[in-house]
Amino acid sequence: MRFRVLVRLKRGILDVQGAAVQRSLAGLGFGDVRELRIGKLVEVDVDEATPAAARARVDEMCRRLLANPILEDYTIEEIEGERLAAREPVR
Amino acid sequence: MRFRVLVRLKRGILDVQGAAVQRSLAGLGFGDVRELRIGKLVEVDVDEATPAAARARVDEMCRRLLANPILEDYTIEEIEGERLAAREPVR
Repeated sequence: MRFRVLVRLKRGILDVQGAAVQRSLAGLGFGDVRELRIGKLVEVDVDEATPAAARARVDEMCRRLLANPILEDYTIEEIEGERLAAREPVR
Repeated sequence: MRFRVLVRLKRGILDVQGAAVQRSLAGLGFGDVRELRIGKLVEVDVDEATPAAARARVDEMCRRLLANPILEDYTIEEIEGERLAAREPVR
């Protein structure tokens, strides 16, 4: 099963990188853009007997390595069946 | 409208960071993990008259700043209505 993990800074934590990108966008004429936040995307294949077991394993990876629980929250989404589509750009 | 942009290295481009994380996971006992790829997540609010116009504006941001078209692909997803949910961790 393939999963997508989205790791974001917790609410209230200053997103310095996001602020810098938002400022750069404003300089390019995108001054109306608001609340830009930058996070990490991790996509991974895990083999377990059931989707629930696979998701629990990904959750354990997040807690042990992928996310910093002091600064970051994360969400886990299953993307089985979208594997090919997810790799293609949408334009 | 709030959008989520997922920026990934193109297929065939070596994901050094992803390989390093996969190796670290293997050291923690997650040796069965495969095809780990790391990308960027950008979430942003854009105000336009229609969802199509807003998406086109986000697409222009990607082309001009957020993604490197030589190395990276990107997908744009609308997350309106999920705004609160998306900020909460799913565990």
